[in-house]
Amino acid sequence: MPMRANTRWMSGVKSQAIEQEPDLVPVPNDAAIVTLVNSDLPAIYRLGIVGAGQIARMTHQAAIKLGITPRLLAENLDDSAALAAPDPVYGHPDSLASFAESCEVVTFEHERLDLGLIASLEQAGNKIRPGAKVIRASFDKLHQRRILQNRGFLVPAFCDLRGPDDLFDFASTTGWPIVIKSVRAGMPGERSIWVVESPAEGMRVLSENGNRGLMAENHQAIIKELVVLVVRRPGGNARCYPVAEVLQADGACQEIRAPAAIGPRVATEAKEMALRLAEELDAVGVLAVELFLTTEGLVVNELAARPHNAGHLTIEGAPTSQFENHVRAVLDLPLGPTWALAPAIVTVNVIGGYDGTDPANHLAEALAVEGAHIHLYDKRPQPGRKLGHVTAIGDDLEQARDMARRAEAALLGRRPW
Amino acid sequence: MPMRANTRWMSGVKSQAIEQEPDLVPVPNDAAIVTLVNSDLPAIYRLGIVGAGQIARMTHQAAIKLGITPRLLAENLDDSAALAAPDPVYGHPDSLASFAESCEVVTFEHERLDLGLIASLEQAGNKIRPGAKVIRASFDKLHQRRILQNRGFLVPAFCDLRGPDDLFDFASTTGWPIVIKSVRAGMPGERSIWVVESPAEGMRVLSENGNRGLMAENHQAIIKELVVLVVRRPGGNARCYPVAEVLQADGACQEIRAPAAIGPRVATEAKEMALRLAEELDAVGVLAVELFLTTEGLVVNELAARPHNAGHLTIEGAPTSQFENHVRAVLDLPLGPTWALAPAIVTVNVIGGYDGTDPANHLAEALAVEGAHIHLYDKRPQPGRKLGHVTAIGDDLEQARDMARRAEAALLGRRPW
Repeated sequence: MPMRANTRWMSGVKSQAIEQEPDLVPVPNDAAIVTLVNSDLPAIYRLGIVGAGQIARMTHQAAIKLGITPRLLAENLDDSAALAAPDPVYGHPDSLASFAESCEVVTFEHERLDLGLIASLEQAGNKIRPGAKVIRASFDKLHQRRILQNRGFLVPAFCDLRGPDDLFDFASTTGWPIVIKSVRAGMPGERSIWVVESPAEGMRVLSENGNRGLMAENHQAIIKELVVLVVRRPGGNARCYPVAEVLQADGACQEIRAPAAIGPRVATEAKEMALRLAEELDAVGVLAVELFLTTEGLVVNELAARPHNAGHLTIEGAPTSQFENHVRAVLDLPLGPTWALAPAIVTVNVIGGYDGTDPANHLAEALAVEGAHIHLYDKRPQPGRKLGHVTAIGDDLEQARDMARRAEAALLGRRPW
Repeated sequence: MPMRANTRWMSGVKSQAIEQEPDLVPVPNDAAIVTLVNSDLPAIYRLGIVGAGQIARMTHQAAIKLGITPRLLAENLDDSAALAAPDPVYGHPDSLASFAESCEVVTFEHERLDLGLIASLEQAGNKIRPGAKVIRASFDKLHQRRILQNRGFLVPAFCDLRGPDDLFDFASTTGWPIVIKSVRAGMPGERSIWVVESPAEGMRVLSENGNRGLMAENHQAIIKELVVLVVRRPGGNARCYPVAEVLQADGACQEIRAPAAIGPRVATEAKEMALRLAEELDAVGVLAVELFLTTEGLVVNELAARPHNAGHLTIEGAPTSQFENHVRAVLDLPLGPTWALAPAIVTVNVIGGYDGTDPANHLAEALAVEGAHIHLYDKRPQPGRKLGHVTAIGDDLEQARDMARRAEAALLGRRPW
């Protein structure tokens, strides 16, 4: 019975795939159709995405536009992307092996993965993009620092923290404050960074988080936090988005602006660093390179081997969004243009407050902010949880920022300050 | 057991909705969450879409962006939108009554509907948008002509064709050629319009299509075919997109350009006509008003009470796409801006050829056309079937058109002419 290869996922991992009996599909009378069967769609379009948060949700959307329906491996029934996608597979990322069987290419929206499993799947010939090497570099921050240092990138002084001695030894060379970080990427919303001003504070963080791997870093005198998104194909073809500037508040990223208000020399240097890093790591897909602009120059803060919060503004602010370019890259398809469509693009994250306000209840007020682009993730409100974002575009930064902030305030039931 | 009202559709129309046992949802420990339950999402966001072609696919996508997951009533397992959406309901549009029960608002991607059923659902208090009045005006072209004539809009001379006598009577006043049309909107790809040059040709069309309602119209000396998209909320708040220009070839719409190359006087008149029509019909959602620019002035050709092929270019070419504005309008949410983002926006339809080429097999070549926006609908290729579209944007019409045409040719495995 003729049927296009990808009209429905047929792996049978979920019973509903079987329920959709192919014999029920009406057969067109046109004889020309019959020749197209079973070979007409390149198998490479069987794209799997591990994770089902908002990154997966927007990546899924970008693939749909290209006629590709990725399959999701979701941990929970009410994960943001699982609510919007057909036939998600429910399972822990550790069930990746059986999931990967039904896909030609597997990509990820987070780094909380079993690296050994990924490496073994890669060796068995699965197309895992990005691969174990890049995932390890973005998952394990100590490993990341060592790689970066070995390749000659400027990083803050750092050390592994196995106990109080390590902390005091480190402090004796760098002085206080010191930044303590968990070595591995945590769950969304989990705190993983502390700035400690004194030995007592440091001891408290160590004792409260002794069960996870920790590292210490020299506290940086940060002028600006920047993010460069590189998107790279397996062959090495790569492009950068304009450098974005990130503004934090209460330990969470609140606002992103692009292009960043930096000189052309810094911008060029940042992009060159990011491209070189992507090359060194042989990254595939989006690699987000978080940088600190310090008085010493550009310091690499962190890497993320996936579409990044700082790139949500590319949906409206670039000819090709980071999500579409990620899909193109992991499927080894030509990349789209990445330039900025306006002089000022601002994204404000919509973060759940303590009053439990659900932005979905305030959609009407937010949509009344003329020109603001509202994105909601259909997530259950929780304090500190990212529930959506608003992007505004204009010729003028203050104007765009004001528009985005007004819509965000409306979504959270607040008056704009 | 707490669960957000719309996290999954719970009507039980499809077994998988039951399979997703709510008790499996992990309960966050945060007590604040519990207060949000079951009342936190306005019931109006339970949006149903009748039909699951590409219009529904793109409307669905636009709703997802706003955090809303519409439910689809799909006729076939492999309908374009059904492949990309969670838990579609499979059924004929006549099963609308049970479908409507699970929705607060129902909208449509086509007009092949039982008008009596829609009117009775409306009377029973269901929110059917657009309502029976507008759907009838776009479904029944004879009725449409009569309404338009009664309200003082310029329409071509027309008559009901119940047999050869009607045709010859009509021809005696208008002369040949004559346009014969089927009164009711047909299935996609079904021919519904014939230009006949002589009595013999007319007789042939009548005898071959005698089983459907036909009407005759005076053949227009068309300078340009224009489309104005109006989007209108229940309260009457309405906006127009820039007038688009449609180019036909082989009886199918091949290319759309916006803003149309017409003077400001014609553009203003076209928009005023469209807005007045939407008002007269009390339309809700997108109303597409197809106009002929003739030597006599602007003549109303057809109406469609849904997002329209001529509006696909609003995805990249306007701050708010027709699909998002349709969702906003039917949910009675504030409308977004509708202006053109560039001086030249061109969409080329990707239409299946006789060689059976599947554009999905040529995605790589098409994506290599820098800056073209590729949209594929995941539809089985058939001659004459719309399989996707390409939009290009620029300062210059010829440049944008060339870009879109090159990508379209690549998708169909042709060299650009």
